[in-house]
Amino acid sequence: MEDKVVLLDFWASPFGMRVKIALEEKGIKYECKEENLPEEKSSLLLQFNPVHKLIPVLIHNDKPICESLIILEYIDTVWKDKFPLLPSDPYQQSQARFWADFVEKKLYSCGKRIWMKKGEEQAAAKEQFIESLKLLEGELGEKAYFGGETMGLVDVTLVPHYSWFYTYDKCSNFNIEALCPKLVEWARRCMQFESVAKNLPDQQKIYDFVLEIKKKLGLK
Amino acid sequence: MEDKVVLLDFWASPFGMRVKIALEEKGIKYECKEENLPEEKSSLLLQFNPVHKLIPVLIHNDKPICESLIILEYIDTVWKDKFPLLPSDPYQQSQARFWADFVEKKLYSCGKRIWMKKGEEQAAAKEQFIESLKLLEGELGEKAYFGGETMGLVDVTLVPHYSWFYTYDKCSNFNIEALCPKLVEWARRCMQFESVAKNLPDQQKIYDFVLEIKKKLGLK
Repeated sequence: MEDKVVLLDFWASPFGMRVKIALEEKGIKYECKEENLPEEKSSLLLQFNPVHKLIPVLIHNDKPICESLIILEYIDTVWKDKFPLLPSDPYQQSQARFWADFVEKKLYSCGKRIWMKKGEEQAAAKEQFIESLKLLEGELGEKAYFGGETMGLVDVTLVPHYSWFYTYDKCSNFNIEALCPKLVEWARRCMQFESVAKNLPDQQKIYDFVLEIKKKLGLK
Repeated sequence: MEDKVVLLDFWASPFGMRVKIALEEKGIKYECKEENLPEEKSSLLLQFNPVHKLIPVLIHNDKPICESLIILEYIDTVWKDKFPLLPSDPYQQSQARFWADFVEKKLYSCGKRIWMKKGEEQAAAKEQFIESLKLLEGELGEKAYFGGETMGLVDVTLVPHYSWFYTYDKCSNFNIEALCPKLVEWARRCMQFESVAKNLPDQQKIYDFVLEIKKKLGLK
């Protein structure tokens, strides 16, 4: 039986991008169903992720898997042969999981405060954001990728956030590249992978999308 | 070489309890070093978890692993022979990870708002808390344990929170058992495991500890 793989997705979501990069690097054919967020949630999404009601949802032979990091673990377990996301050594595994979890906990919520808030709240979010990126830069060190010689779990988890950097810069008079040059260099290195270049939207397009949302929410 | 396993811990932390239950069920000998929280953090803790500065930290042959769910995955990978936390089927694995992650995201922060807040904020937290427990009760269904015939990842992740239920009840005129009788029944079933009974503190002791903290913070 051929595998049937469907992804419920939204183009601007860094969480969805992670899954698409992993699927494409693994060479898995899949059908992408685009949600019309934030306005509406499809009945498919509500059916397959009734708990969180969030994309991405990977539907593999009609069975749903939710939450991007759990999906990445699943993909890596089921399709072992190509492009391993996790290293084989248990300690190295735990460290990759630690940094992927760090990205998950710190970047998105903090980034959201950068583009939604003003004044002190925004300044605090910017400070925390840079602190997190600096920690990640330290972890990257002199390696080409977090995964070493090639991309791995942490790279795939983190690089989608790069597509939002321009938005953070523009919304808050920020300059992430000046503050974290090595991390931006690393992101550009990842962009040489077709799976990354193809699935990270143009930074301007993300910014236009955010401006639209801010307008709808009555934020300036 | 014999394994050297050290745990940086704090007795009232549900996150630390998870790790102790897993270590004991796996039959791993370890040394527990108790932190003096919330007042101070040991130099060992700051050295071995410089990013989050939180317990639990598992130090295995001098190498640290942080974040309780990542520690549980590590323990399950390194000590495979006994008491598997994760099922072997990749899809079942993803579902166990999903519910463990759900507990991680929902229970503690919501519980904290129950004992720290008053009025509307507290009422909202109580409602969310019960909604989460009901979802967990639904997932448990007619099974003896989330893991099926015996405890697994979700059981070990969730059951420590039971030691805080009395605190939530007392701090907010709540009655969790009346609202989620099957889940409380499940927790009592888990308490028949020596590893659980031994590592979950007396509920009154947790409540006294919380009253102390509230006093120090000037909360009523």
